[in-house]
Amino acid sequence: MRKFVVIVAGGKSVRMGGDIPKQFIEIKGKPVLMHTIEKFYNYDKLISIVIVLPHLQIAYWEELCRKYNFGIRHRVVEGGHERFFSVRNGLEAITDDNSLVAIHDGVRPLVSEETIARCFEVAETSQCAVPAVPAVDSIRIVTAGEGNKAVDRSLVRLVQTPQTFNTTLLKKAFYQQWEARFTDDASVFESDGNVVTLVEGNVENIKITSPADLIIAENLMR
Amino acid sequence: MRKFVVIVAGGKSVRMGGDIPKQFIEIKGKPVLMHTIEKFYNYDKLISIVIVLPHLQIAYWEELCRKYNFGIRHRVVEGGHERFFSVRNGLEAITDDNSLVAIHDGVRPLVSEETIARCFEVAETSQCAVPAVPAVDSIRIVTAGEGNKAVDRSLVRLVQTPQTFNTTLLKKAFYQQWEARFTDDASVFESDGNVVTLVEGNVENIKITSPADLIIAENLMR
Repeated sequence: MRKFVVIVAGGKSVRMGGDIPKQFIEIKGKPVLMHTIEKFYNYDKLISIVIVLPHLQIAYWEELCRKYNFGIRHRVVEGGHERFFSVRNGLEAITDDNSLVAIHDGVRPLVSEETIARCFEVAETSQCAVPAVPAVDSIRIVTAGEGNKAVDRSLVRLVQTPQTFNTTLLKKAFYQQWEARFTDDASVFESDGNVVTLVEGNVENIKITSPADLIIAENLMR
Repeated sequence: MRKFVVIVAGGKSVRMGGDIPKQFIEIKGKPVLMHTIEKFYNYDKLISIVIVLPHLQIAYWEELCRKYNFGIRHRVVEGGHERFFSVRNGLEAITDDNSLVAIHDGVRPLVSEETIARCFEVAETSQCAVPAVPAVDSIRIVTAGEGNKAVDRSLVRLVQTPQTFNTTLLKKAFYQQWEARFTDDASVFESDGNVVTLVEGNVENIKITSPADLIIAENLMR
């Protein structure tokens, strides 16, 4: 089956005149997003790569590609005002429905090739594969009236990306109405009546969201 | 109210002839456990400090204290074969029941003084204060029959230490029978019919459990 990856590097970090969005910060000689793209390219040189970027960042990204002489072919698609709409735009760029698509966070450059391989392999038979790791911390759920209750930690999984799906089923799921509880693609897929299958992720596959995360990522890349 | 802290540095990492337990590894010029102790001492020079260590590590710890000329007064208590029994042993060393006690992981040297202060302040009125931070990742709960379901991320809290309690109530809770679901002190406290109050933790307050965590901690200490 043909493989696609939609790498979402949009989100709300677009600040004119503000900080550089995390996906463009240089670590180990190149922007985070280029490291991320390389992981999928190294996994499979024939994978089709779609990058979703906010409108205001597209010209800057093209400039970076020239500056770093970045040679991996990819298409760039414009993002929406919520991650959900960015993913939907990325999916619209895929016309080959008899395929698998991985949706990945642009700021997760530490995904392992093993995780990517596991996701595509399981999605081929299960229509869906979502990488996850066990929780290290104890977990509580906030309940009504300012209460909270413990959750059995052995049952908790922290979800990562690339969340990988049968393209036709995922596209259909993304034509539901947006809801605030859609924090990832698996929740969108599940909400449309599909079953979510978890696979093993890799613990280093962190999402770079803070300056501390950048330091961590830089060290983990060594 | 008088303040105590029981720092638990025991657990299953005791391997004769194996790796050095994480609490003894040197970062920024001294063992992790000394950094942890200093955080509580700096918060309040009058706090009473109890360290719980596995029997086989006590002589080594005393040697480290001499070697590093470690001057902060503390008592050392022998640990049990589960964290639960180690905490119970630490609590037995506290005879002043009209007091507050913080239970802290020895391998969390990055707790902030603000988090410690918040815990003691809230525990004074609520009998309990447990530091927690929001989840960054999406979370799923494994259900019967290999299924799983999404949890609303905005309701999820990752629990840290120092979990801080009214000493009398916590001691009573620790005379329950041990259960596998007691992954932290709050779950023991709650299981005895008490209400758990969450307070804001600090995101850097990670638990050092892997070599990668050590690198992270070292960088965060800069």
